[in-house]
Amino acid sequence: MNNFTYDIPTRIHFGKDALDFIGEEVGKYSKKVLLTYGGGSIKKNGIYDKVVEELKNKNIEIFELSGIKPNPRIDSVREGVKLIKENDIGAILAVGGGSTIDASKIMSAGAKVEFDPWDFISEGKEIKDAIPLFTVLTMAATGSEMNGGAVISNPETNEKLASGSYYTRPKASFLNPELTYTVSEFQTAAGSADIMSHLFEIYFNNNDSMYMLDRMMESLMKTVIEYGPKAIKDPKNYEARANLMWASSWAINGFLSASSNAEWSNHPMEHELSAFYDITHGLGLAILTPRWMDYVLSDDTVNKFYDLGVNVFNLEQSEDKMEVARKTIEKVSEFFFEKLGLDNNLNALGIDEENFDAMSKKACGKNGVIKGFIDLNPEDVRKIYEMSLN
Amino acid sequence: MNNFTYDIPTRIHFGKDALDFIGEEVGKYSKKVLLTYGGGSIKKNGIYDKVVEELKNKNIEIFELSGIKPNPRIDSVREGVKLIKENDIGAILAVGGGSTIDASKIMSAGAKVEFDPWDFISEGKEIKDAIPLFTVLTMAATGSEMNGGAVISNPETNEKLASGSYYTRPKASFLNPELTYTVSEFQTAAGSADIMSHLFEIYFNNNDSMYMLDRMMESLMKTVIEYGPKAIKDPKNYEARANLMWASSWAINGFLSASSNAEWSNHPMEHELSAFYDITHGLGLAILTPRWMDYVLSDDTVNKFYDLGVNVFNLEQSEDKMEVARKTIEKVSEFFFEKLGLDNNLNALGIDEENFDAMSKKACGKNGVIKGFIDLNPEDVRKIYEMSLN
Repeated sequence: MNNFTYDIPTRIHFGKDALDFIGEEVGKYSKKVLLTYGGGSIKKNGIYDKVVEELKNKNIEIFELSGIKPNPRIDSVREGVKLIKENDIGAILAVGGGSTIDASKIMSAGAKVEFDPWDFISEGKEIKDAIPLFTVLTMAATGSEMNGGAVISNPETNEKLASGSYYTRPKASFLNPELTYTVSEFQTAAGSADIMSHLFEIYFNNNDSMYMLDRMMESLMKTVIEYGPKAIKDPKNYEARANLMWASSWAINGFLSASSNAEWSNHPMEHELSAFYDITHGLGLAILTPRWMDYVLSDDTVNKFYDLGVNVFNLEQSEDKMEVARKTIEKVSEFFFEKLGLDNNLNALGIDEENFDAMSKKACGKNGVIKGFIDLNPEDVRKIYEMSLN
Repeated sequence: MNNFTYDIPTRIHFGKDALDFIGEEVGKYSKKVLLTYGGGSIKKNGIYDKVVEELKNKNIEIFELSGIKPNPRIDSVREGVKLIKENDIGAILAVGGGSTIDASKIMSAGAKVEFDPWDFISEGKEIKDAIPLFTVLTMAATGSEMNGGAVISNPETNEKLASGSYYTRPKASFLNPELTYTVSEFQTAAGSADIMSHLFEIYFNNNDSMYMLDRMMESLMKTVIEYGPKAIKDPKNYEARANLMWASSWAINGFLSASSNAEWSNHPMEHELSAFYDITHGLGLAILTPRWMDYVLSDDTVNKFYDLGVNVFNLEQSEDKMEVARKTIEKVSEFFFEKLGLDNNLNALGIDEENFDAMSKKACGKNGVIKGFIDLNPEDVRKIYEMSLN
């Protein structure tokens, strides 16, 4: 295991009263806040009114930026930065899922620099400061509410890239599981797949992470397996929504990855799918993951699949580890495609191999390789896309 | 489950290079630090020299308070507060185990008030501020390095009581598992028992904690079961020491207890043993815990024992839950007394029933009851002490 620094300062107000703390927390930092959100559903379900009331109670002036889309665009970020600078706004409150929060993170950093915020993403310019960010989560999936990372798309260049820093971690996030009662079956399934994928990306690594953290990842996987399907069948099941919500934060807040420095494989491949076809991130991950598992399973990698099968999917311990590993991958497919009910191939989404060459090359980035559990070059990635077609 | 606020701002530098960050972290807050430690073993094993070097590199002036004993006394706290005030010291660096850290926490709070720091403990006066505290951990057990709690003894009154607050959480802790290589077999065993007990105290609750957190507690228990005995047999096993060290922090930093508001049973009973007989805390817990389990096991409580047996001790699932529960308690005893090799009764420590009446009464405090998984009155506590005699 590697040396690491653990530092997760985001305060979380969790539960049915979580939004009651908004005014108090935001008010510590600014009397002017930029309220960011997506398509306006928060106006129908009462969340908007509650948020505005809490802010007004503390005499905080509200500016608004709505219309932030899934796979959030750099355009929205630029618009937010402009509003912040023009009005001397001192904090951002993002209300929504990962897309709204991610876009708001780059706004919070963009507010502190003079250059185009896309430079953080495309040129990897370092984020050295940001205005305080707060989040109200309305969907459990990306974990953006408790980490500093952001993924932003640029439709002009078909790019979807990650950025982030310590400074873009939310100061506080307000997590009321009830706010996710209205998340659709499909989005609940895609969100659950996203959480599982975050865990798999860290679990499958070559750096001998701590035993303790492997067991904790398995605990979170069990939680998603237990409650993802329950939340789909019974959308107002508080325990299901609460467990998924808290699991989503912990899957990717830095705690689990700390000792392993895990490098991710499926996310870079999926980001090209979303960049080219604008599909839902979690759905893309669900389709790719079992194919990636098939592709990288070998005598060298079998132990990790075996552990997963025995510890998470309750498969019988056996002499034949490869047999258990294959069953494990079947269980993963069963979870994504039967228990969560997600489409199980790219053809079903209307995607063919037209862009696979370009996507494979882009997924491997400037160095021509996705470093990970097994390093993947563009040919490997193309094969995994092909395996995902039907 | 209950609503909760999660807020654990302590930064942790973990690994072989952890102490390299001391000067940088302390230097952010003060140019004068009070270095607190115990019996002087840190001068023999090189830790003292390393710490002093790191502080001097950043031109931080060092004041010292040594001789802090296990089950730390309020006298040491008073001495520390005096030194801090006389020399206008702005930070504390505690080097040691839970005792040194606990004493330093109350010093950090005492530095900010004019009254006797014992009032925090005995009268429950609220801690509203503290000077910054940093810790170098030399023993994995109490978890004090990542929470705000402290337990302090007053030999004059035979009292051992808890205090603490958000303000007494360390700003940063430096955790190098190698520093625990010299911890004796006995102290490693007692520390492992202490960690297990923290997990049991939260696990056995009536508040329906989150499924996810129950599974995570089980992961930490598995970690202690895996690595406690390994660290005893092979004291320089880095993975064993690292897993125990990080597990000790997470067992009691507030994360697991957040949703349950668990109330503790074995710790208040053990604190009387330590207060009256000055025995090692973890040893007292190991002796009491299986007896407490026997005492509270019933048809009403059987499910939790069953989960523990099946999920942690790999017992077969069975129709007869009570049978599994009994075996679970045997497994707990086996772990404490065979795997960790701790003494399994109070007589072996030279303790008889002479003070049981006084201890039972004190353990139940002003309200005459230990609220917990099963509420205990002084008669119950006395019976559990009696069951622990031999």
